[in-house]
Formats: sequence, C-alpha cells, structure tokens
Amino acid sequence: MYIPTFQDVRDAHERIKPYVHRTPVLTSTFLNELTGASLFFKCENFQKAAAFKVRGASNAVFGLSDEMAARGVATHSSGNHALSLAYAAGRRGIPSHVVMPRTAPQAKKDAVIGYGGKITECEPSTSSREQVFAQVQAETGADFVHPYNDPRVIAGQGTCSRELADQVPELDAVVAPIGGGGMISGTCLTLSNIAPDVKIYAAEPEQADDAARSFRAGHIIADDAPVTVADGLKVPLKELTWHFVSTHVSDILTASEQEIIDAMRLTWARMKIIMEPSSAVPLATILKNRDLFAGKRVGVIITGGNVDLDRLPWMNS
Amino acid sequence: MYIPTFQDVRDAHERIKPYVHRTPVLTSTFLNELTGASLFFKCENFQKAAAFKVRGASNAVFGLSDEMAARGVATHSSGNHALSLAYAAGRRGIPSHVVMPRTAPQAKKDAVIGYGGKITECEPSTSSREQVFAQVQAETGADFVHPYNDPRVIAGQGTCSRELADQVPELDAVVAPIGGGGMISGTCLTLSNIAPDVKIYAAEPEQADDAARSFRAGHIIADDAPVTVADGLKVPLKELTWHFVSTHVSDILTASEQEIIDAMRLTWARMKIIMEPSSAVPLATILKNRDLFAGKRVGVIITGGNVDLDRLPWMNS
Repeated sequence: MYIPTFQDVRDAHERIKPYVHRTPVLTSTFLNELTGASLFFKCENFQKAAAFKVRGASNAVFGLSDEMAARGVATHSSGNHALSLAYAAGRRGIPSHVVMPRTAPQAKKDAVIGYGGKITECEPSTSSREQVFAQVQAETGADFVHPYNDPRVIAGQGTCSRELADQVPELDAVVAPIGGGGMISGTCLTLSNIAPDVKIYAAEPEQADDAARSFRAGHIIADDAPVTVADGLKVPLKELTWHFVSTHVSDILTASEQEIIDAMRLTWARMKIIMEPSSAVPLATILKNRDLFAGKRVGVIITGGNVDLDRLPWMNS
Repeated sequence: MYIPTFQDVRDAHERIKPYVHRTPVLTSTFLNELTGASLFFKCENFQKAAAFKVRGASNAVFGLSDEMAARGVATHSSGNHALSLAYAAGRRGIPSHVVMPRTAPQAKKDAVIGYGGKITECEPSTSSREQVFAQVQAETGADFVHPYNDPRVIAGQGTCSRELADQVPELDAVVAPIGGGGMISGTCLTLSNIAPDVKIYAAEPEQADDAARSFRAGHIIADDAPVTVADGLKVPLKELTWHFVSTHVSDILTASEQEIIDAMRLTWARMKIIMEPSSAVPLATILKNRDLFAGKRVGVIITGGNVDLDRLPWMNS
C-alpha cells in the first residue's frame, strides 16, 4: 500500500490547476452568531462538476502516461466521483467507463453522459457491481480509479485544504464530512504537514456512523447498506483512508437526519448557496457541539452541490 | 425633484461601507457557452438582507441627522425594501415602521421583525396601504423612505454597478431587472458617469411589462395589479426613475413566466446559488436575445436571494 506524501499533494495541485477551480471561502455573520464560532466555508459546491471529487479524479486522469490514458479510466460510483471522473477524462479527451446501478438518479446519469462518460448499468447490489465492473475493465483495459481508496485520489483531495489554509490563516479546526474518507484523508495529509496544530474533525450521519464506530473500535467496521439523506456518505472506510483517519483525526461527530436537513436548509436560507445534504453534516455537528467550537476559527468543507431540485429533503419532513 | 448626482453615489458608498458587503462577481463556463457571451454575475443575493435594496436603505438611514433619525424611518413594502430598511435602522439603533399587506408571506414578516422592525398591517389594496401609511407617519413623525422614488435610495443602489465596473473591466453591457426602477436608475447614474459606453438593458416580465410599454410610449404607464412569479417587479416607474430610464437605458427586454422560471432553475442547477425569481429575468432575456449579447462582456445583476424554500416555482409548473 503506497501512502501518498505531501509532495504528492503539491504535484497534484500543479497538475490539476488548469482543470479545477480555486473555490472561494464564504462566511456568514448569522451562522457565526448562532454557533459562537468563526466559520469559514470552503465552497466546493462551486467546483467543476460541483464536487471536490474532481480534484482527485483529475489528478488520477492527468497523471497517467499517454499509453495508459489511451485505454481510458473506469470506476463504479453512483455519485459525484462518477461525474468528476467523466469530467476529467473529457478534458483529457480519453474514454471513461462508469458502472452505475440502474436505479441511480437519471440526473446523475445524464450528467455523466453530458461529460462524455460511458455508463454500464448494474443491479443495485455489491455482487452485481463487482461482476459488471470486472467485465468492463477486462474488455477495455481501462485504469481503475477508486472513488477514495487510491493514493492519487487522496493526494488530489488534499489540495482543497491546502487552498483553505492559504485563504484563511490561523485556523483552529477543520470539519469535513466522512463517507469513504477521501476528503478527510486528503485533509489529514495536508494539514499534518503544513498546519499540524489544526484539529481535524470528521462529520458523519448517525444513520451511517460506521466511521465513528470504526474510530472508537480501532479497526474498520463496514455497514452493509446504511440509509441516510446524506447519500454521499454511505460507503465504508478502506485501508488507505483508515490509515489517515486513525492517525490524524481528533474525533468523528455525528448528526441525526433531521439535524442534517435543518442545517442544509439553514445554509440555503441564510447563505444563499446550494449544497447537497452530505455537505450539511459538518454544520449540523458544529451546532450540536457548540462548546467544542465556540470562539474558534473553524474551516468547514462544503463538499458538493449536486441536489435534485425537484425533491428537497425538507419537503418530505 | 432633486436628481441625484454621481457625487451622491460616491458619498453613499463611503457612508454605507460598514453596513453592506462588497458582493462577489461569479462566472459560469456553462452559461457562457450556452449564451455565447461572457457573463459576470454581481451577486447581491449574498448582500446583507439578501438584497441590493439594503444599499439604498442604508444610505437613507445613515444620512439622517441625529434629530431626524430619532423619530425613525417608515415605508410600505411587502418585499426586500422592508427587510432592508429594518436591517439598516436596526444597525443605526433607530425605529423602523413598515406597512405590509396582511397577506404578505409570514417569512417576510418574520424577517422584518427579526431585524427589529415594527409592522403595521394593511389590507392588500393601494387605498388601504396609503391610508394606513399616512396614519403611521402622522403618529411617529418617521422619515418616509420610498422603495425607489427617492434620490437617497437611487444613489445607494448606484454603488452596486460602481463595484461591478471596478471588479470587471471593459464591460460592454449591463442587464438588471426593472420593477420600480431603483436599481436600473442607480446603474444609469453610475455608468453614465464612469463608463458611458456600457449599454444598459432593463429586463422585465412580459406579464408586468409596464416599463417596456412606458419606454416605447415615451411616458409612464402604470398597471394596476400585474401577476408574475417575479414578485419584486410588479411596481410601476415613478418620476425620478423614469428620468433615468428614459435618458440612459438602451432597451427594455421581456421574458415569459416559463422563461423566467427556466432561467432561475438553470442558475440554481449550474451556479449553485440561490436567487429569487426577479433576479432570473436578466438571464432569461439574454437567452432570448443571443445575437444582442454574443461575444460581449455582460454584467448581470442578481438582485436578491429571498425565496420561499417550501414553494419553488418549478414545482407548480
């Protein structure tokens, strides 16, 4: 297992610069007063493909030799990694193959196709996904870019907190959502090198709290099929992300479904930005743990903005 | 009738600086490709009270002598001017009295109260509003700050395009929504002084096209009660705004209800920002008039972000 270094983050940053945004950091007087903290929102919802995942995907795609690139890239994902890989491959002009469950939202499928990706559908089960993916890979020889358990992807995600640390001096803490742990691992990799005093908190839905339970147990616990509105955070940790989480994270905080929805709506209403449910989990945990963050300068990573505008979660609740 | 000068805009800018944001300008590769133009969105949805109206309201409130300020300010509005005046008065620590129709959305009333404003309800008719407002003013001696037909307000709104011209060099055109004409008048006042070659277009709902008809007729035409999703744009021009519109505006373009809703949704989906329906009218008209704007550098003023998140217009359409 190759563990990426901070030099890999620097290299990634240089490599992906033409293809991703240096996203802005926004603040909200209202939310600062509400939490008692100074919150700095790193807006990856304004990123290309509306997700931080484009950083890691672009690093993987643009790091390939011409020969490997010619065979394309492949992944399985029903979410932002699929869009991001298709976007990055499109920018390089190489094929991308995405295995998606046939039940994935049509909007996500359309976006992958819009970026030039080729979708192969599988049944919504792990066995079907793995079987279909193996077949796609065998047929195409495409390079597998895992959504998070890949050193190239983690190094790419690490560029986000590198920008944040540059944009906001003297942070006390950073809070980011945790699903498979790609963003958190990149954050750990970067901050442990350039700002080792900054505490790193992961934020997770109570209903998909496998990372929090792993953290307390000291080994990876994977849930089968957690159900949460934060649909980007259902996947389990893997070896590489577990390495960073277990070494550098201060704590993993959780929030209920209603708390996540409330935090999402609050951000939409007060900050006038569109974030997806997964991105609201950090604010939800900050609101629940005021004592931990009061008086502190806290970076909050808004991981993405891909939302079905016809089905907003507060309309069902 | 006192016609404000560009010196009034400069004075306003200095006066309101501590109370309003210098809002960011955002761009979208997707929307540039779609329109063939280079669009620069001035994001007043990120403004205090989520509306450009806070510029004019703050200029009026902070320009009062201490003696006049002590009696407070008053207005009639069911929309962003009400919130903005309450916000500005709250910042100065003086009373604000707002006459609102009892049918106004509760969220708007709550926001006025949240900023410390005092609401007096009227029936939803012009006669009731005028009668109730006269009574409030007689009782309080508060200074009347008209939503747009007031030189202090127009000078305040003129600070928006002053920032835009500073943030985006060499604009060819600016497009802003038109209701009563406060924002457009401020834009005319500023740009005719500092960038007289920039063409100014007003954007209006077809279903509330009194300004467009006035522009063609050469005199003010006021409609009684137009119905449009762009609820900030229902009011008619008045003498002062007519002066600027008739002198400096290149054209008034209109868009249908469906075109406005589509443009609003497109912006939410692609730019990940929350704008209100009125703010989508400029993009709707740009999409309809591609030839006019193709190849041009176009400033687009996003006037506000106050939306009922429980009732999004595309959910009824």
